[in-house]
Amino acid sequence: MSKQTYIGHRTWAIPGCCIPAESTGDEPVNTSRDEISILNTGGSVVSITITIYYADREPAGPYRISVDAERSRSIRFNDLIDPEAILLQKEFAVLLQSDKPIVVQFNRLDTANGGRNHSTTMAFPIT
Amino acid sequence: MSKQTYIGHRTWAIPGCCIPAESTGDEPVNTSRDEISILNTGGSVVSITITIYYADREPAGPYRISVDAERSRSIRFNDLIDPEAILLQKEFAVLLQSDKPIVVQFNRLDTANGGRNHSTTMAFPIT
Amino acid sequence: MSKQTYIGHRTWAIPGCCIPAESTGDEPVNTSRDEISILNTGGSVVSITITIYYADREPAGPYRISVDAERSRSIRFNDLIDPEAILLQKEFAVLLQSDKPIVVQFNRLDTANGGRNHSTTMAFPIT
Amino acid sequence: MSKQTYIGHRTWAIPGCCIPAESTGDEPVNTSRDEISILNTGGSVVSITITIYYADREPAGPYRISVDAERSRSIRFNDLIDPEAILLQKEFAVLLQSDKPIVVQFNRLDTANGGRNHSTTMAFPIT
Repeated sequence: MSKQTYIGHRTWAIPGCCIPAESTGDEPVNTSRDEISILNTGGSVVSITITIYYADREPAGPYRISVDAERSRSIRFNDLIDPEAILLQKEFAVLLQSDKPIVVQFNRLDTANGGRNHSTTMAFPIT
Repeated sequence: MSKQTYIGHRTWAIPGCCIPAESTGDEPVNTSRDEISILNTGGSVVSITITIYYADREPAGPYRISVDAERSRSIRFNDLIDPEAILLQKEFAVLLQSDKPIVVQFNRLDTANGGRNHSTTMAFPIT
Repeated sequence: MSKQTYIGHRTWAIPGCCIPAESTGDEPVNTSRDEISILNTGGSVVSITITIYYADREPAGPYRISVDAERSRSIRFNDLIDPEAILLQKEFAVLLQSDKPIVVQFNRLDTANGGRNHSTTMAFPIT
Repeated sequence: MSKQTYIGHRTWAIPGCCIPAESTGDEPVNTSRDEISILNTGGSVVSITITIYYADREPAGPYRISVDAERSRSIRFNDLIDPEAILLQKEFAVLLQSDKPIVVQFNRLDTANGGRNHSTTMAFPIT
């Protein structure tokens, strides 16, 4: 591929999110979090719409974010507050829809009870 | 995609499940668990059949669950008790078959010996 | 799909394996390990050949295993001793080749220094 | 597949990398790290170019690595110092471009605050 080619998919899903409620250690490095990391290899900014699905209420959103050309960006779900904050320690699923191809990874850090416990997976691409 | 479009696949597999037997800390937040999280973005309820495969006995099931329209749902394997409970600390594999496309993620939380240890992966989609 | 249909792929790769050398707690539940979990949903036994790739020596194998019809099976890499044992704490990659479709997941448990630390990912399917 | 067949993809992305800054325990076994593990099953060396994408500055690279025929290789991101070192505890994304098919897995080890916390996922293949 050439420089500034868009790679990946426009739609991604992450069914198993949940913002951990407790943390141990210095902020913000050790703050427990669920987050997404997005790669935009292309030559223009990408615009992304996020919808949050819950178990027992209507979907929330759209949350609107962007990623600049040839940049990566990590977003903690607790920073998504417009149109409404996501509740702590409540399970939810995430749907991302981008106007150009991107790649999306899910990361969790849980520092409750001490250690820095990580888990990660690529988001699921919709074709 | 439009609102209420079904996304994902109808069949998913998770070969490496095992319900952790011990937990540390307050229930139910810190209860060790293997669980699946399911996203149904579509406009109607989805019906899902789960089959459990073991190393040394016949498959168990079908376990029947559903996920409402535009909802996510997380299910702990220790809550699957009909037609029979899944044994603790015994390895098993999971096959999910849905009547409409869904997305499925696997999550483990193990709090034995202290920390909140997570691992996660998307279930494997069958096309 | 019908009962006893084979699902998945015949060839799978896992580039980032490494058997943890130390463990804490009762054996064998808390033994640190890298392992693969295999699901055979089909109606006959599957025969699998494993090749181990190293950074600085010739590939080792073939290691031969099988999984019975409608069974799952988890195999710890330290149990692969024929034609030769896999060294502890040395990085290696794994190639699985099956005579029928299967699904393969990679799991690590590391109990050194206390907690039960898990990580997991589906093996990478080769089409 | 035959012996020495190349498998996998030529382009892979990992959006969510971050080199952990602190470690506990003996070096280098317990050094916190983000790393990639690469499998080259083919009969010749593969040449790989790595580009690093940041949130707030121009992409860095190309970093050039190779993997010998029928070998695996794990590379810690803190060992990528030419043309410039990757900063600790700063989020970045990785793009790998190979001249022949390979398979790539991402691994994190974080030993800050004690335990050996792992997370892993396959890199995302670009087709």
